[in-house]
Amino acid sequence: MLQRQTPLSIDWIGDVDGYLDLIDQTRLPERLEYRTCHTSDEVWQAIRQLAVRGAPAIGIAAAYGVILAARDFAGGSERWRPELARALEYFASSRPTAVNLFWALDRLRARADRLPASASADDLRRELLDEARRIHQEDREICREIGRCGAELLADGDGVITHCNTGGLATAEFGTALAAILTAADQGKQLHVFVTETRPLLQGARLTAWELMQHDIPATLICDSAAAQVMKEGRVRSVWVGADRIAANGDVANKIGTYALALLARAHDLPLYVAAPASTFDLSLRSGDEIPIEQRAAEEVAEGFGRRTAPEGVSVYNPAFDVTPAQLIEGIVTEWGVVRPVETAGIRRVLSPAQENRKLSQ
Amino acid sequence: MLQRQTPLSIDWIGDVDGYLDLIDQTRLPERLEYRTCHTSDEVWQAIRQLAVRGAPAIGIAAAYGVILAARDFAGGSERWRPELARALEYFASSRPTAVNLFWALDRLRARADRLPASASADDLRRELLDEARRIHQEDREICREIGRCGAELLADGDGVITHCNTGGLATAEFGTALAAILTAADQGKQLHVFVTETRPLLQGARLTAWELMQHDIPATLICDSAAAQVMKEGRVRSVWVGADRIAANGDVANKIGTYALALLARAHDLPLYVAAPASTFDLSLRSGDEIPIEQRAAEEVAEGFGRRTAPEGVSVYNPAFDVTPAQLIEGIVTEWGVVRPVETAGIRRVLSPAQENRKLSQ
Repeated sequence: MLQRQTPLSIDWIGDVDGYLDLIDQTRLPERLEYRTCHTSDEVWQAIRQLAVRGAPAIGIAAAYGVILAARDFAGGSERWRPELARALEYFASSRPTAVNLFWALDRLRARADRLPASASADDLRRELLDEARRIHQEDREICREIGRCGAELLADGDGVITHCNTGGLATAEFGTALAAILTAADQGKQLHVFVTETRPLLQGARLTAWELMQHDIPATLICDSAAAQVMKEGRVRSVWVGADRIAANGDVANKIGTYALALLARAHDLPLYVAAPASTFDLSLRSGDEIPIEQRAAEEVAEGFGRRTAPEGVSVYNPAFDVTPAQLIEGIVTEWGVVRPVETAGIRRVLSPAQENRKLSQ
Repeated sequence: MLQRQTPLSIDWIGDVDGYLDLIDQTRLPERLEYRTCHTSDEVWQAIRQLAVRGAPAIGIAAAYGVILAARDFAGGSERWRPELARALEYFASSRPTAVNLFWALDRLRARADRLPASASADDLRRELLDEARRIHQEDREICREIGRCGAELLADGDGVITHCNTGGLATAEFGTALAAILTAADQGKQLHVFVTETRPLLQGARLTAWELMQHDIPATLICDSAAAQVMKEGRVRSVWVGADRIAANGDVANKIGTYALALLARAHDLPLYVAAPASTFDLSLRSGDEIPIEQRAAEEVAEGFGRRTAPEGVSVYNPAFDVTPAQLIEGIVTEWGVVRPVETAGIRRVLSPAQENRKLSQ
């Protein structure tokens, strides 16, 4: 069975009065450091500053962040309910695109809603911690399932391109697209992974290359702009990415550059696979046009790594995500199976057992 | 008439015993510094380290570099001819892809070949300097012509994407693709230029953004991976790039990422224009497959910005150029007119007056 070779990205230490340890992903690969969060503000900042990033990881971290917010709640439900609502709203404001964040907050809200009016703030804290731990533990299992489903789409000898970071750092464990690669390698398939560095914040160069090296999987770092050339040279058989939000029609919001890779893959007749937990689907949105796209600071582009790389005062356009139309995606790998072809009906079919199961577990 | 707003990228100071001043393009935009070259080795290093870069600028700099090498030549032609051959070979080894380098060296060789056996090393130096100055001066005029031809393809209100740096820094003056943009703006057309930062060495962010700001042309910096999104949003009407070598069939070697932009432009039904002097054509090569592609150091990718951005020991694939097939190119803008459609016969037609003229001027 696949063994984790990297430390846990997110770790809740202790019980209701515990705290959150996050690998500070902004320091990798130079330093592997934990960022300890004793307050909800510290968690909010960690999410905003991308110390913790990756759609599933953001959801897990925010859930624990709400526990830290709830530490100050007191009295009966007439007092803590509005405080909880504010805490959930606060975390919902940390990043706009990844829907797993809102999904995790919704789970906490639903859990609290089921508490009787007589429940104390202590009762609430215990319930919320239990729910956060479930979200965290479920994500581990989901990643393993995504890995298993995705690995079937990878053959011995395959070269693949992957973009951004979709590994253990982005999730509870193993990742989404990267879990497919890790699982296939664990099954004895020889793979070679071309890792796009992923400007502006270099999650591919800093995080994915590091994770693959920890797992001893052959990896080659390339500039984002070299992906088309790697495809043209026949070095890869497929392209693998994660997702931050998927609309009902299968349009996928993911790290800026994904849409370009999808077009380039199509031009070279290579399949693009998206791997993401079912919680990444936002069926309330008909298409990707409705997905809010986070615009990030100019400095990420113009002052890479503490050094000015563009003239002072230059105008910068820095969307953190783009939307890849469903028709450019060969399949979406979820813990419940592969949506293929990517279309509304197929998505509903694959998701329906997940939704039923979620109801059962509540 | 278009006025230069940036300092000369290449400046020969003095006469036969002069020296070469080059803007050190590795220091921009932080510092505008000249790198003074008193020896041929200094020029060779400046080319290799990209202190001077851009296909036409490399040719001009190498030509002056040969003058510095010739400073040590002595005696009659039986002595200086083999020394000159070695100097030409030395500069030919500085960078492999841009054909303008070899073209400039060929012009010096041809000029020397026409000298009688009785010519002294002093005679040679005078001839070489005259030829280098001609190459330099001709490039100024060529850039203006390219600008005039290219500007006709730009309309008032156009947004454009440009990749890498094709401006005054890359040439004697004004540039190639950027000359078209500068000329159109000078004609009163309102343009908005999206500048790809151009990893790994960020010539777009550091050089093109700087040049456009000097000329007061609205410019927005984007990550290379955001170009597809900018196209999708309908912000641009065309894509403009330079070239390092063009095969007889119109396949174009240019900065890594050009091929991707060409595919993305095609997917969005946008024309891609290549702007380059006639000297960029290498009619000895039937197709782009025969163009040698320079592979550059891993550190350019893994230690960008003077800081380690990828794990120690990571494998890196860093081709400096890629090849864009002719069928993805809407037109090639030269000083003799626009090749359009891009195909062997059209290239020969546009180049023939250039070749005849070159013969006349010799």
